[in-house]
Amino acid sequence: WPRRRSRSRSRPLREVLFFPSPPSCTEALLAEAAAGPGGAWRPCPCPLPHGHGSLSRLLSLLLTARRSLEICLFAFSSPQLGCAVRLLHRRGVRVRIVTDAQYMGLQGSQIGSLRLAGIQVRHDQESGFMHHKFAIVDGRMVITGSLNWTTQAIQNNRENVLVMEDAEFVKPFLDEFERIWEEYNPINYRFF
Amino acid sequence: WPRRRSRSRSRPLREVLFFPSPPSCTEALLAEAAAGPGGAWRPCPCPLPHGHGSLSRLLSLLLTARRSLEICLFAFSSPQLGCAVRLLHRRGVRVRIVTDAQYMGLQGSQIGSLRLAGIQVRHDQESGFMHHKFAIVDGRMVITGSLNWTTQAIQNNRENVLVMEDAEFVKPFLDEFERIWEEYNPINYRFF
Repeated sequence: WPRRRSRSRSRPLREVLFFPSPPSCTEALLAEAAAGPGGAWRPCPCPLPHGHGSLSRLLSLLLTARRSLEICLFAFSSPQLGCAVRLLHRRGVRVRIVTDAQYMGLQGSQIGSLRLAGIQVRHDQESGFMHHKFAIVDGRMVITGSLNWTTQAIQNNRENVLVMEDAEFVKPFLDEFERIWEEYNPINYRFF
Repeated sequence: WPRRRSRSRSRPLREVLFFPSPPSCTEALLAEAAAGPGGAWRPCPCPLPHGHGSLSRLLSLLLTARRSLEICLFAFSSPQLGCAVRLLHRRGVRVRIVTDAQYMGLQGSQIGSLRLAGIQVRHDQESGFMHHKFAIVDGRMVITGSLNWTTQAIQNNRENVLVMEDAEFVKPFLDEFERIWEEYNPINYRFF
């Protein structure tokens, strides 16, 4: 259970993460989050560094969600990020996911498992790609960049992720999410 | 020749552009930039809207470059953006491009034509993708997002592009560019 960031700081968070992230273990981070405050969890005994690197930072930021998480992702197959999102859903955070129809069914996609967990997912029916890669935490923080949430991208690609709490960045992304969420409402799906 | 933005504004530019961009003609914008200040150019007579939309805005921002332009792009095939970059190079702006080896040779890629124009291009020799999609104008403005510079992405995909002048965003991207530029120095290429 990551310690809550102090809300008393005067400046909005602004951060840039770069990938590839050197190999690092996120088991303890996810176990601690799953156990909840005061819960029992064991530190992971594996020899990898723990809680370091861009993936751990991305997970920690997502795990600060208390109320809502909007996710708008072209490709989502990272098991660790999938685990974090299911955990937030179980904790009562309202999770909504928008994704690309052509990628969500590929082997290794997390979308099926997230749907099975009861998380709402909507997808496009367009010929173009739903190519966004952003998430919005509690309507206050946008996380966006070149990174799809896949192990390939995290471990092998040159990628960037921006983290911003400035309202002038968060609001346009929230508006874009709501616009797409409504457009991709299943009542609008066409069946051929 | 786009009018120079007033440098007297107190706040750094912060903007989000979304795609797809509705069809719009950029001929006049590029012709005006090519003619230079006081140069003769004719407005484009085609019936499309001119100078509107996210692509025109992206072109205008790039065309403000006076000294340097760093480009770090997975895929670059848009003729309009290629034209703008060649124009800046002819105008004496120092242009440097980093791109992905697997994509630069594909049909429609602008990379060959940019190299022929005398622009320096470096590429990876890695199995992972060089998946960044950012540009830095005069070391003061970073333009980054999900958008590859391809007509497919501009016209058909859901994409975002952030424009930021905050030093805390610009500097990490500039450092990342210089790091990659050195790593991809041809003296480090391996030939098998």
